[in-house]
Amino acid sequence: MLNHDKLRELEPIFYPRSVAVVGATADDTKMGKRYLEALLVTKFPGQVYAVNPRGGVIQGIKAYPNLRAIPGPVDFVEVSIPKEHMLELMDDCAAKGVKAVQFYTAGFKELGGQENRRLEEEMVRRARAGGFRIIGPNCVGVYSAPGRLPYGMMPFMAEPGPVSIISQSGGNGGRIMMNGQARGLAFSRVISYGNASDLNELDFLEYLGVDPATKIIGSYLEGVSQGRRFLDLVGEVSRSKPVILWKGGQTPAGAETIASHTASLVGKEDLWQAALKQVGAIKAANMEELLDTIVACHHLSPFTGHRLGIIAGLTLGGGGQSVAAADACLPLGGEVPAFTEETQRRLRQVLPPVGIIWRNPVDTGGMAGENPPALAGILDLAAADPGMDLVMVILDMMHFKTSSPALSQALLEVLSAFRRSQAKPLVLVSPFGPDEEVRGRVERELARAGVPVFASVERATKALMNLSFYWRFREGG
Amino acid sequence: MLNHDKLRELEPIFYPRSVAVVGATADDTKMGKRYLEALLVTKFPGQVYAVNPRGGVIQGIKAYPNLRAIPGPVDFVEVSIPKEHMLELMDDCAAKGVKAVQFYTAGFKELGGQENRRLEEEMVRRARAGGFRIIGPNCVGVYSAPGRLPYGMMPFMAEPGPVSIISQSGGNGGRIMMNGQARGLAFSRVISYGNASDLNELDFLEYLGVDPATKIIGSYLEGVSQGRRFLDLVGEVSRSKPVILWKGGQTPAGAETIASHTASLVGKEDLWQAALKQVGAIKAANMEELLDTIVACHHLSPFTGHRLGIIAGLTLGGGGQSVAAADACLPLGGEVPAFTEETQRRLRQVLPPVGIIWRNPVDTGGMAGENPPALAGILDLAAADPGMDLVMVILDMMHFKTSSPALSQALLEVLSAFRRSQAKPLVLVSPFGPDEEVRGRVERELARAGVPVFASVERATKALMNLSFYWRFREGG
Repeated sequence: MLNHDKLRELEPIFYPRSVAVVGATADDTKMGKRYLEALLVTKFPGQVYAVNPRGGVIQGIKAYPNLRAIPGPVDFVEVSIPKEHMLELMDDCAAKGVKAVQFYTAGFKELGGQENRRLEEEMVRRARAGGFRIIGPNCVGVYSAPGRLPYGMMPFMAEPGPVSIISQSGGNGGRIMMNGQARGLAFSRVISYGNASDLNELDFLEYLGVDPATKIIGSYLEGVSQGRRFLDLVGEVSRSKPVILWKGGQTPAGAETIASHTASLVGKEDLWQAALKQVGAIKAANMEELLDTIVACHHLSPFTGHRLGIIAGLTLGGGGQSVAAADACLPLGGEVPAFTEETQRRLRQVLPPVGIIWRNPVDTGGMAGENPPALAGILDLAAADPGMDLVMVILDMMHFKTSSPALSQALLEVLSAFRRSQAKPLVLVSPFGPDEEVRGRVERELARAGVPVFASVERATKALMNLSFYWRFREGG
Repeated sequence: MLNHDKLRELEPIFYPRSVAVVGATADDTKMGKRYLEALLVTKFPGQVYAVNPRGGVIQGIKAYPNLRAIPGPVDFVEVSIPKEHMLELMDDCAAKGVKAVQFYTAGFKELGGQENRRLEEEMVRRARAGGFRIIGPNCVGVYSAPGRLPYGMMPFMAEPGPVSIISQSGGNGGRIMMNGQARGLAFSRVISYGNASDLNELDFLEYLGVDPATKIIGSYLEGVSQGRRFLDLVGEVSRSKPVILWKGGQTPAGAETIASHTASLVGKEDLWQAALKQVGAIKAANMEELLDTIVACHHLSPFTGHRLGIIAGLTLGGGGQSVAAADACLPLGGEVPAFTEETQRRLRQVLPPVGIIWRNPVDTGGMAGENPPALAGILDLAAADPGMDLVMVILDMMHFKTSSPALSQALLEVLSAFRRSQAKPLVLVSPFGPDEEVRGRVERELARAGVPVFASVERATKALMNLSFYWRFREGG
């Protein structure tokens, strides 16, 4: 059973009415400056307070010497001061009645040593006694677009959307958000939680599981504290929302790096992966696969098949491209069966018969990229073929730059129109090339139309197979 | 023994003194227009002739009704007319004394059917009798920067460089060249040969093996006509020049596509791959890996080790990035051993001790990207560590866009300076992100300095392991 109480419990984190930055400063070399700046630049709608023992005015607002000196209530505290001051700060938080504290400050159990570990434990003890929660330490923080809370020091705010991220690494959380945003994804929450001393992946996954703003959950994890409970929770959440997990520490060198990063315990990789699969978690090997899978998930209606009808050679010769596409799909679980005789016969009517391959992939011999109506006809035939579960179009990104704006727009419109009128999932593969300046524009325009774009056949196929796995799990459950 | 006679034999193809375009036209919908245009736009330095049965003036030059009507000698002919006229054309070529003919025209054995196959065979018979060679049919053509011959219909010409490509697929050949050019590579020859009816991969590999302009050979092949001879030749060439092979038809679906593309016979994939390895061929699974390996090969001095010293977290938090980097290397054969105690001790002196990982990868905690002298110090320490064979720096591409031009330039200069003063190979990994506009500029600037750039740790590692394999082969041979 999903725990709906979590919404209220973590409300002060995702919808704080007031935020205090402890360690606020005008000093360019200090992170505290950027934390305060991010709140001001993104126009956080609630109260923002600066805390600095020297007081004064910082970035245009009054600075208080400590939390207790702030006149109004404080829901949420962002901390970027040396760890020597931690225990005093915890007592201030308790006295002030804050609800949650997020620590950029690092140097605790991830450094090793009994003293560091004990300090972290004592902080948690005081937080529990004081009735507030800890995020981190050693983390960037929490982004909540519905609550207008920026992601730590990142001066960025966008419209909320269906994607939420739990990332033990603050840097990876930020990279996932910025790269996803550039591909047309919209995020509601991005949560980094570093050493997970108090609030951890279980709390945040419970929250996102019931969060009405979140439809797709992506995650970068280094370790989990309670394996069985985590698996059960993923299983429960997966029944209503896809959970895509990228796990750090897949290799011995990765696991050793984690020991110095967040000091998480890495379990047995193979057992873990098998268990995750059983509870319906979608596994991603790296950030690319995580984002690709989220992109596919966001745009495509559910499907469970693996049979790809591929349209290639829209520009330049497409024979080699067709061969490469087929070669790329198969090892990843994609199938590239021949189109039916009837489909091939009708494709021949759309395209001239020389230098063209009809079997699947279809090589349009450089012609469909110049002829939007022909492309539309070919796509409809591919979608109508009863042997195909998905349609994949391969179109070099450079074509959108070298073609006339009118042709370029007409091609995008063919893809958008297909998406409006056809039930079969459609994806565009635009391999990386010399004309990357237009990629962002093309990806975001197609994202608005509901067509996902991938940078290689391999990456598209991985994402599609991940989704197919998930929807089979949902059907079975 | 390499065959030096090949240089003279194929000289009319790579250094033609005159080129005739058969099928030249002003009609925008015809490929013959673009073939003629490419020669004119790139200012081919020899004679250019247009051939069209209707004569007249085409694109500003006089058109002759047939080859025989041309007044001067013709070395090289580019053909883009329907196949019905092929036999007559072959007789014209013989009468005119041309040296080689390249056919964009398709519709021969790749379509199946006895008649199509017989026509192709008859063309070869007449070429042999007439004393000239055939490239194709069903191909784009040949690019020769030293001979100033553009690649078929592509209006592109650049300074010659050490890379040459043999690609059975004309489209893939063009994509390899354009994508490589954008990454700072320079090409001498790009050869597509379609159905390989006369000149085939053996001829061209022999040529490139002795071609003084060619130092690195990349290849996309769909099939080879004489397996044993091909392997022997690759083995001979590999002793002096790296040969990187991307083979189409690695899967059943890919092989079936090849049947309709160039009608090549695809051998047993696994036996083939094992045999190639034995003769020192570097295998690439796709175009990305082919280009990545060429890029690495072009810039890096020989090395045979697998131990990577990785510097990460130059911007944003780098803990998760470090974990991911280690995880990405190991499954591909890279090793990420700990830096020595001494190196770690000295790294601690360069970087503050909190939130930083020293083991390997080094996480600079977002600082080295703001501090070029610190980065230089870290790189020198990494290179001096006796346990490392290579140094890899991970730096988000977006940092080159969001930083001040001065900082951005200083970081590039640190990498360039390292390359000038250190023997250990250095590579930069800049993962794809939201700021791709600057990638081309950064990649090309670093290419001039001799530093290869890769878009992911995975891709860099694959390329590096490929090279390490090759240099081990060279040492053993």
